[in-house]
Amino acid sequence: MTTMNTRTGRDGWAAGTRVYFENRRGRLPAYTITEELVREALRDAPQPLTLTVRYADEPDFAALAEAEFFMGSGFDTRRLADHAPRLRIVHCTSAGVDQYLPLDWLPAGAVLTNSSGIHAEKGGEFGLLALLMLNDRIPEHATNQRRHRWHRTLSSPIRGKTVLIHGVGALGGAIAEKAKLLGLQVLGTRRSGAPHPYVDRMHGPGDLRRLLPEADFLVVSCPVTAETRGSIGAAEIALLRPEAGLVNVSRASVVDYAALADALRGGRLAGAVLDVFEQEPLPPEAPWWDVPNLLVIPHVSSDNPEDYVRRSVALLAENIGHLVAGRPLRNVVDPVRGY
Amino acid sequence: MTTMNTRTGRDGWAAGTRVYFENRRGRLPAYTITEELVREALRDAPQPLTLTVRYADEPDFAALAEAEFFMGSGFDTRRLADHAPRLRIVHCTSAGVDQYLPLDWLPAGAVLTNSSGIHAEKGGEFGLLALLMLNDRIPEHATNQRRHRWHRTLSSPIRGKTVLIHGVGALGGAIAEKAKLLGLQVLGTRRSGAPHPYVDRMHGPGDLRRLLPEADFLVVSCPVTAETRGSIGAAEIALLRPEAGLVNVSRASVVDYAALADALRGGRLAGAVLDVFEQEPLPPEAPWWDVPNLLVIPHVSSDNPEDYVRRSVALLAENIGHLVAGRPLRNVVDPVRGY
Repeated sequence: MTTMNTRTGRDGWAAGTRVYFENRRGRLPAYTITEELVREALRDAPQPLTLTVRYADEPDFAALAEAEFFMGSGFDTRRLADHAPRLRIVHCTSAGVDQYLPLDWLPAGAVLTNSSGIHAEKGGEFGLLALLMLNDRIPEHATNQRRHRWHRTLSSPIRGKTVLIHGVGALGGAIAEKAKLLGLQVLGTRRSGAPHPYVDRMHGPGDLRRLLPEADFLVVSCPVTAETRGSIGAAEIALLRPEAGLVNVSRASVVDYAALADALRGGRLAGAVLDVFEQEPLPPEAPWWDVPNLLVIPHVSSDNPEDYVRRSVALLAENIGHLVAGRPLRNVVDPVRGY
Repeated sequence: MTTMNTRTGRDGWAAGTRVYFENRRGRLPAYTITEELVREALRDAPQPLTLTVRYADEPDFAALAEAEFFMGSGFDTRRLADHAPRLRIVHCTSAGVDQYLPLDWLPAGAVLTNSSGIHAEKGGEFGLLALLMLNDRIPEHATNQRRHRWHRTLSSPIRGKTVLIHGVGALGGAIAEKAKLLGLQVLGTRRSGAPHPYVDRMHGPGDLRRLLPEADFLVVSCPVTAETRGSIGAAEIALLRPEAGLVNVSRASVVDYAALADALRGGRLAGAVLDVFEQEPLPPEAPWWDVPNLLVIPHVSSDNPEDYVRRSVALLAENIGHLVAGRPLRNVVDPVRGY
């Protein structure tokens, strides 16, 4: 892909502020930022923009040097620190930003924005799917299928059961909304402890241990921060009911997978659905593939291939508009909180 | 378990009409008809009843000889024909009655009633679960997990996709209701072709082939009859979209599993979720365990262990009341239609 120097904005505007979009090789087509997508998303930009779309392994350092806006995924923060001094917004297409922390590489005056919220529809549906899978013992049935073993574990309807959502942000809130559709009781934790329309009882993170024994299902959907890393360890897993199930759509480091695997191997818990792993792709020799009642999902819970890039570019476009108009930006990552 | 000669009905009534309940050994506890359950369910019976609860391998032929009502599962129709001449209602705890057909064994004047409808809440939830699993490629992920293979197939949200329900009865209707919660378009077939509140377009069975190419998901939930047996064969599977998914919660003989497995092995279809098999328990050497993108569910989709027997006994109790009052019975199996 070559550098584009496409002019955008209303007819007659001169080319101006540069926006730099970076792709990575080897990713699924759904993640490719195309010229067509960015041109469409930035059509109504409030000021003339010059667009550059490059692969990370073919950088355009001259364009980077003048870029005020950057969007990418899994990008090299060192490169931005060294070559992109004029950046004002660095936008990442993921919701999680743990790989970019600490933010000491950000050029002076620049902010990091994430794509929290664009994954909510798909992620909410996946959350509901995971709850239903745990309720209907799908991880157990899949384990038995591997062993050619017919074993009928019956389960009652999910209505009226309790889900605890550890970290109610955009994703956790979307899961709460879907859970209410099926009549679950929804408990939640978040830093602020502030109420949420689809959470029956919201708590601060300090109440987590007290809430765990109430849960039929534990959904881990918090950002990974110094506070949440390892927050679901052996002690927390032991506080879950023997028949409870666990879903992780956050980051692997929030949950102690070795402790979880021990519990599952010991016949505790109804099952686990894990969408995230320390090392991705998960290597063939990883132990998690064969843990009983554990379902390995290849990090697909929240990415809608039909609009992933489009919605992320739209978020950046919206923020460029806010910046030009002097309004507050959306989805700015707090360097101290880390999300 | 010994014969009970428990009197039921309002205080002071004399023992009377006999109801015979039969259990089978080796079934899950959730299926056990207990004295407590039947006493509770028949407490308000409109006439005095004498209750017998026996295991099938310890029959009480004297009680059978005078029984007017019988309830069981997988019972010996020959035994009833030979030893229970006074029966008026034979009630089976399942919705499917294919194993009792033809009804030539029924004592003169007796009817067979089934438990269609008591499985709807649980079965509706399972149907939704199966649709979400097919949409999110869970059968494929489970297949890849068996092979320790990380492969990210993304999927868009289910909202707006189309499910075709082949056989909209109590179970299919409950699945339709849940599907509407998530914004699916619902197409249906049933013998009458009559509208249904949760089906956007209902058709007669003759339209099936024309509808198949429209479906993202095909749910098979019809009773097995001469008309439906084999109705989803190689030709019908070939009419499905290459990325469509199939759920069978009816009976195995409705779907040609060999043709389905061929399609899946050839990389056609997104996956299949099968809850029913010709031989159950499915033996370890059955080929279906290892078919790619096929999820084997051990016939648990629709049975709620918390109220399975209670609701089935309640249905019989209701029908005894209708019979005494001269009202039409519920869930009478039509000997010609076969359901």
